[in-house]
Amino acid sequence: MTIAILFGGASYEHEISIVSAIALKKVMKKSPVFIFLDAEGHFYHIPSDQMRSDHFSSGDYKKNDALHLTRGGFEKRGLFKPKKFEGFDVVLNLVHGGQGEDGTIAALLDFYGIHYIGPRKEASVISYNKWLTKLYAEGIGIETVEYQLLRIDDERKLDFGYPVIVKPLRLGSSIGVSIVKKEEDLDFALDVAFEFDDEVLIEPFIEGIEEYNVAGCRVGGEWVFGRVEKPKKKEFLDFEQKYLDFARTESVQEADIPASLESDLKDEFKKVYGTAFEGALIRCDFFFASGEILLNEINPIPGSMANYLFDDFDNVLDRLASHQPKVRRIRPDYAYIHKVQSAKGPKVG
Amino acid sequence: MTIAILFGGASYEHEISIVSAIALKKVMKKSPVFIFLDAEGHFYHIPSDQMRSDHFSSGDYKKNDALHLTRGGFEKRGLFKPKKFEGFDVVLNLVHGGQGEDGTIAALLDFYGIHYIGPRKEASVISYNKWLTKLYAEGIGIETVEYQLLRIDDERKLDFGYPVIVKPLRLGSSIGVSIVKKEEDLDFALDVAFEFDDEVLIEPFIEGIEEYNVAGCRVGGEWVFGRVEKPKKKEFLDFEQKYLDFARTESVQEADIPASLESDLKDEFKKVYGTAFEGALIRCDFFFASGEILLNEINPIPGSMANYLFDDFDNVLDRLASHQPKVRRIRPDYAYIHKVQSAKGPKVG
Repeated sequence: MTIAILFGGASYEHEISIVSAIALKKVMKKSPVFIFLDAEGHFYHIPSDQMRSDHFSSGDYKKNDALHLTRGGFEKRGLFKPKKFEGFDVVLNLVHGGQGEDGTIAALLDFYGIHYIGPRKEASVISYNKWLTKLYAEGIGIETVEYQLLRIDDERKLDFGYPVIVKPLRLGSSIGVSIVKKEEDLDFALDVAFEFDDEVLIEPFIEGIEEYNVAGCRVGGEWVFGRVEKPKKKEFLDFEQKYLDFARTESVQEADIPASLESDLKDEFKKVYGTAFEGALIRCDFFFASGEILLNEINPIPGSMANYLFDDFDNVLDRLASHQPKVRRIRPDYAYIHKVQSAKGPKVG
Repeated sequence: MTIAILFGGASYEHEISIVSAIALKKVMKKSPVFIFLDAEGHFYHIPSDQMRSDHFSSGDYKKNDALHLTRGGFEKRGLFKPKKFEGFDVVLNLVHGGQGEDGTIAALLDFYGIHYIGPRKEASVISYNKWLTKLYAEGIGIETVEYQLLRIDDERKLDFGYPVIVKPLRLGSSIGVSIVKKEEDLDFALDVAFEFDDEVLIEPFIEGIEEYNVAGCRVGGEWVFGRVEKPKKKEFLDFEQKYLDFARTESVQEADIPASLESDLKDEFKKVYGTAFEGALIRCDFFFASGEILLNEINPIPGSMANYLFDDFDNVLDRLASHQPKVRRIRPDYAYIHKVQSAKGPKVG
C-alpha cells in the first residue's frame, strides 16, 4: 500500500502542513509519494529528496511536475495525451486547517472518486466549526466547557467572568486565539480573532486544568488507539510552539493515569468518533476536572498525524487505507422520466 | 447577470434535478446557460433548445460539448489549447440531493473559485443530515418534533408510539420515507430506509398537522421573502408526487393566515438562515401546532428554486448573484518557515 501525502492548501495552516509532511517523511518506513497543493490551488508532485521547507518558501516547487485532478486520481498533462499519475494507492489528507479540515479536500476527493484517509465532509464540518462541535458533543452526550458565541456585529458583553479564552470559530492551530484575563484586554483579543472569522467562541479559561490527548481510529470494526498523552503544561500553545508541535516525530511517554481514567477517555473518544469520523485517524483533546471528562476539541487531521503516539504507525495507516468507508454508487435509471414521457409523449419538457 | 444552471449529479434526485432545471427554463425571463453534471461526474453544456427530459434519459446529452472545471470556471478541451467557457457570470447550484446538497458541489465551486448561488459547505451539511438539522435547531433555539436516531445495527425498538415517520438520515425528496401506523409494518419501513442510509431518523407522525413553507434569502443585509405557502394536504408527498412538485412553475396563492403567524414564521426563518445559509435561496418547512412553530426541514436547494412563491423571481436571483459571501483570500508568507530556516540554516528538513 503506497500512500500519497497531500499537503499545503490555501489556509493559515499552510506552512504547518508542510512541516507536518516533512515529519511524516522522517517517520514512515515505506516511503510515501508527496503531492503539494499550493495556495493558488495547483497540485505538484514533489520528489522525496526535495521535501525541504525552503523548496516551498522559495517557490522552487513550481519547477516540479504539475498534477491535475481526474477521475480516480491525478494526471500529468503535456503536449500530448494526459498521462495518469501512477504510483500510489491512497491519498492521506494532511492539509491542516481550512480546505483540508473544512470539507473542501474531502469533497474534491469524493467527487473525483479518489481513495483517501481523512475526515469526510460531515466530520470535517462538525470539527472545523467549534460551535457545531459543541452541538455535536451535546447530541452524543459528551460534556464540554460552557461557551458563548459572538458575531462581529454583536455587543461585546460576556456571559461569564474572567479569565476567558477567545477563539475564531473556524480555525485550528491556535491562530487568533487569546487568553483574556481582564476586561481591558477583551477588545484587542476580539479584534484579533475577528481578523480570521466573523464569529468567535468564548469560553471560561480554566487555569491548570488537566488535559489528555487521545488519538485513534476504527478499522474494520476494531479500535486502534495510540498512547494517551498528557501534553506538557503551558498556558496554551501559541502558533510558533504549535508549529514545532506539528514537526513531532519522537515517541511520547504514556500518561501516568489510572487504568479507569484511561478507559473512560477511550470510551469518550469512541462516542466522538462514532460513524461520522470513519476513514480518519483523529485526535481528541479532553479536559479532566472534578472527576468529569470534557471534550475540548477534535483534530480530524492531527499534526504529523500524531505519529508519535503509535507504536507501529505505518501499520495503522495501512489498515486504515484498506478500511475506507464504502460509497453508495448511484446510477439514475430515468424510470420517472420514462414514465412521464410515455404518459405525455416523447417530447415532454 | 447571466446565470448558469448546474443540474443533474450523482444522486437519487438526479431526475428531479433535470425536471427542476426545465421548470426554471420556462420561468426565467433572461435565458440561463445550462450545465449538466452526469452521474459519472462529467459536465456538459446543454443548448437551451435541447433542454428536454428525453435528451438526458436517452444519453443524447453526450453529444453536447464536454466542460471541464478550471480555475474560475469551466473550459472546453479539444485537440488544441483548452478554451475558457464564457457566457455566464454565476452558477446556480440546482443539483438536488446528494452531491448538490451534501456540500460536494459547494466545495468544488469554492475550490475552483467559481461564483455561485447555493448553500455553502456548512449549510449543506447542516441541512442534509437530518440529525444535524435537529442539533442546529436546538442551538439556535427553534423547536422541532421529537426524534430517535437508529443505526442499521441498533435494536429496532421505538421510543414512542405509532404512527411514526421513518426517514433515511441523509436523503431529500421523500425517497425511502414511510409512515408506519402499526408495529407489524416497522421492519419493512426500516428495511426500505436502510437501503439508502445506514442511519434513519424516526419521529412521531402527527396526523393533519398544519404545515407552512417559507422561502427566502438575505441579500446585502435585506430579507427577501416569497409568499408563505400552505402546501396541499396529502398524507405526505411520495417520490412521484414530489417529482411533479419539482416541475412547478405556476404562482401559488398566499396562505390565508393571520399577520402575526406570518411574521412569526418569517422570524423563525431568519433564525434558521442566520449566517450559515448566506448565498443561498432556501425553503424552510415549518409545522404549526398548539400555537407553536416547529422546524420540519430545511431545503437549501428547493425544487425549481421555489420560483412559484416569488413575484419577481429573476430579480431575486440577480440580487442574490451580486451579494455572494466574501471569501477570505489566504496567501502564505512563509514567515515561520523563514524564521526556522534562519535559526537552523537553509537546509532544514
